[in-house]
Amino acid sequence: MSRPFDLTLYLVTDPRLVQIHGEGLRGLVATVEAAVKGGATIVQLRDPDAHGRALVEQARALKALLAPLAIPLIINDRVDVAVAADADGVHLGQDDMAPADARALLGPERILGLSVGNPAEFASSDIGVVDYLGVGPVKATGTKKDAGAAIGASGVAAVRALTRLPIVGIGGIDGALAAEVIRAGADGVAVVSAICAAPDPEHAARALLSAVTAAR
Amino acid sequence: MSRPFDLTLYLVTDPRLVQIHGEGLRGLVATVEAAVKGGATIVQLRDPDAHGRALVEQARALKALLAPLAIPLIINDRVDVAVAADADGVHLGQDDMAPADARALLGPERILGLSVGNPAEFASSDIGVVDYLGVGPVKATGTKKDAGAAIGASGVAAVRALTRLPIVGIGGIDGALAAEVIRAGADGVAVVSAICAAPDPEHAARALLSAVTAAR
Repeated sequence: MSRPFDLTLYLVTDPRLVQIHGEGLRGLVATVEAAVKGGATIVQLRDPDAHGRALVEQARALKALLAPLAIPLIINDRVDVAVAADADGVHLGQDDMAPADARALLGPERILGLSVGNPAEFASSDIGVVDYLGVGPVKATGTKKDAGAAIGASGVAAVRALTRLPIVGIGGIDGALAAEVIRAGADGVAVVSAICAAPDPEHAARALLSAVTAAR
Repeated sequence: MSRPFDLTLYLVTDPRLVQIHGEGLRGLVATVEAAVKGGATIVQLRDPDAHGRALVEQARALKALLAPLAIPLIINDRVDVAVAADADGVHLGQDDMAPADARALLGPERILGLSVGNPAEFASSDIGVVDYLGVGPVKATGTKKDAGAAIGASGVAAVRALTRLPIVGIGGIDGALAAEVIRAGADGVAVVSAICAAPDPEHAARALLSAVTAAR
């Protein structure tokens, strides 16, 4: 049993998109702080361009911000960075370390998430060690170039039918699509650019949170 | 105190250069097997293009080959991959996780190596938790584009003067330069393309080993 977490509004960071206080650690922390003020319930650090040392630094800065607020910090891909920074968990893609290998390193309490693009990927994954699923891309997006084909809200519903695990929809989600994804059975929505690239991340987060709660 | 290791001829893999049995896992394993037959004393898995799952697969295949021969397997950068595959250690660059963070994850027995480009990098690093140093690039090379300026054999001697830790010279090393690097005080030489890109890696390794032992 992992630590408690709430997928309602899941922020995935992208330092390349950050609009406030510029790029770098300061812009990243300011954006996450604003998003959390606006209602983000969980945060994933994702920075595919960063090396290990910068990732650990970013993770520690976000942990210092989020731990007092009881908002879990999830690290994309790098189990070693998550443990070094004492983050709350790891999110894995299908090309990342196998979930069972990551679970062995993380121990039983840390949160482990897995990206699933369709029912076939669900069927071929070590779901037994996973705490939640990221399902998508719901809509095609420029943020993640190696993502699979867009699956729409109906794709979320197809994975929902296979499991009682918490599910967060991801990929090109704005307010209107957030409502669709929730009605398709997702527990929350994950966004990157809708918050990171917004001139006012707090306002953007608040609007998305309203869309999710209204659709429930 | 780490496990015993011998830096005499240190092979760093580059799957993009592998010439025998083609690219992929089969070519990688065949190249390492030939290099070890020719005298490589330690092997580092480095594949900057590979994701975590492929790295773990490569590491496990190399571990199965090397463990019975008592040749240590070192993983570049990824501490999580090293632990998941039960490799013998990790090699860190200056942009990778800080040595102290890696040591905390690896425990006291695994081998930890650090790249050092000059005396200033040596002075600013957590040397106290490191088992050996990779010093270079001795000569400019196309294999590693983010490497610093070439330091020559005199650069190896400059770091040698600062520490009794085992040192391996790296970067553009062939037989003639291997002898220079050893005479400058290195305990061994690390090569990438001199073995990986050779049509006969076993022969290439044997020639390098001769150059190192003759120069001692």
